[in-house]
Amino acid sequence: MELWYTEEWTQNVRLSIKATRHLYSEKSEFQQVDILESKEFGRFLTLDGLMMANEKDEFIYHDCIVHPAMATNPNIKKVLVIGAGDGGTVRELTRYPGIEKIDMVEIDELVVRSCQQFLPITAEKLDDPRVSLYFEDGVAFAKNSKDGYYDLVIVDSTDPIGPGEGLFSVDFYKDCYRILAADGILVNQHESPYFERDAREMKRSHSKIKALFPISRVYQAHIPTYPSGHWLFGFASKKLDPLKDADFAAWKELGLKTKYYNTDLHTGAFALPTYVREMLDNATA
Amino acid sequence: MELWYTEEWTQNVRLSIKATRHLYSEKSEFQQVDILESKEFGRFLTLDGLMMANEKDEFIYHDCIVHPAMATNPNIKKVLVIGAGDGGTVRELTRYPGIEKIDMVEIDELVVRSCQQFLPITAEKLDDPRVSLYFEDGVAFAKNSKDGYYDLVIVDSTDPIGPGEGLFSVDFYKDCYRILAADGILVNQHESPYFERDAREMKRSHSKIKALFPISRVYQAHIPTYPSGHWLFGFASKKLDPLKDADFAAWKELGLKTKYYNTDLHTGAFALPTYVREMLDNATA
Repeated sequence: MELWYTEEWTQNVRLSIKATRHLYSEKSEFQQVDILESKEFGRFLTLDGLMMANEKDEFIYHDCIVHPAMATNPNIKKVLVIGAGDGGTVRELTRYPGIEKIDMVEIDELVVRSCQQFLPITAEKLDDPRVSLYFEDGVAFAKNSKDGYYDLVIVDSTDPIGPGEGLFSVDFYKDCYRILAADGILVNQHESPYFERDAREMKRSHSKIKALFPISRVYQAHIPTYPSGHWLFGFASKKLDPLKDADFAAWKELGLKTKYYNTDLHTGAFALPTYVREMLDNATA
Repeated sequence: MELWYTEEWTQNVRLSIKATRHLYSEKSEFQQVDILESKEFGRFLTLDGLMMANEKDEFIYHDCIVHPAMATNPNIKKVLVIGAGDGGTVRELTRYPGIEKIDMVEIDELVVRSCQQFLPITAEKLDDPRVSLYFEDGVAFAKNSKDGYYDLVIVDSTDPIGPGEGLFSVDFYKDCYRILAADGILVNQHESPYFERDAREMKRSHSKIKALFPISRVYQAHIPTYPSGHWLFGFASKKLDPLKDADFAAWKELGLKTKYYNTDLHTGAFALPTYVREMLDNATA
């Protein structure tokens, strides 16, 4: 028997991965949660049939969603993480001794529990004493958070369809702005510029954020298991510029080993292809 | 009826593209040549069942294989192009008024003729008066070329299996070095770091080139239709550094519109992920 996991990148494009075992399959109140095993990618988590994280390349996504903000402001102490149920974002954050508090808000407890059982590579640091886990709606959590409380908000969401939808709304971004400190940073997974539907969501998200934040930039990464492999992250802030204000000396002083991120790549990642730049410049909600 | 083109990225990973028509299919002396039509990617050329070029994203590959070298030395006059049967590389080169001579050496005439008929988007400039087309073995052509004759050699080859194999050999790279002028540049398609087999070829190719050329760098691009979408190019030269010596002012003066390439991206593309850097630093033949 051959077992193939197939993901529709568009109606006309599919990525298929040969699986060796289907380790976990449950339907939560919010979505279908599966964990499979494969030779090429090791174990991987899918939500509603879409690849979220796998053992081979999760380091790329998690390096990119955490380290550029931390290198821009190595004094970050309080972090709010929304989504990120596999735990990889929190794992990278816990490597910073200066971080004092990480509030992680994941709407779907089943995602966290299944990853703790089957995907320890990402979930292993969720029991760090600085981490508080909340199984709640991230939109409501942000609404109820105090003004200026967080130094960094990371929105590590699924696509803007299903449970992740509210995390792409103007009201939510307004709360992110409000709950961030004066030098606060918002990082979000920002979809892809390549296939039409993803690019539409990217443009909508970007137009909303840039209307609210004085500084709003986008950076890119190679994530082969996401549609097209060309993935974007948003960096928005009240004050700090990710290039001019980056404190690479302080970041290097920390001595963190990273497999994808480095300070040259930090700068390079903000240099976008012309067609992506134009999409972002022309983006409207 | 549904028609799906499926490419094996590895034994365990496949990309499938829904096709609307199979426009062309012939076996040449060297390889199987096919042109298909699809909704997502427009028309696309495959050789031995591997994606070479398509209407949607060919601009990325062709921008990347041409413009970084031309921005490093805008005075390039004589160019040798090896492979590149779809014509896209030559099309980009013909946009530079300063280029006086382009010798294009493609081993397989059938590739050129089929693209001229079915893929005019890439093949349209092969009749430029500066272009001489040779349907010969690129390895032999380089061996028979004069010392110091070319300012730029572009190796736009298939993978190092089948007809492209000799274009990854030490003897061939030695001839490239010999036939280049004192400020000459060699650019080659450099495979991908992501899947194991591609990465092995990348390392072998890189180790050979860096043993011969004083300057040997690698840069990256997002090419979604190549395995993993993370593709590399080699930049080697006798004298010119692609970052320190780049003449962006002169390049901008030309006023070329490019959909992928820009001068910030030029610099950014050389900032590689840590794991790729380490692969290249440790590469041995």
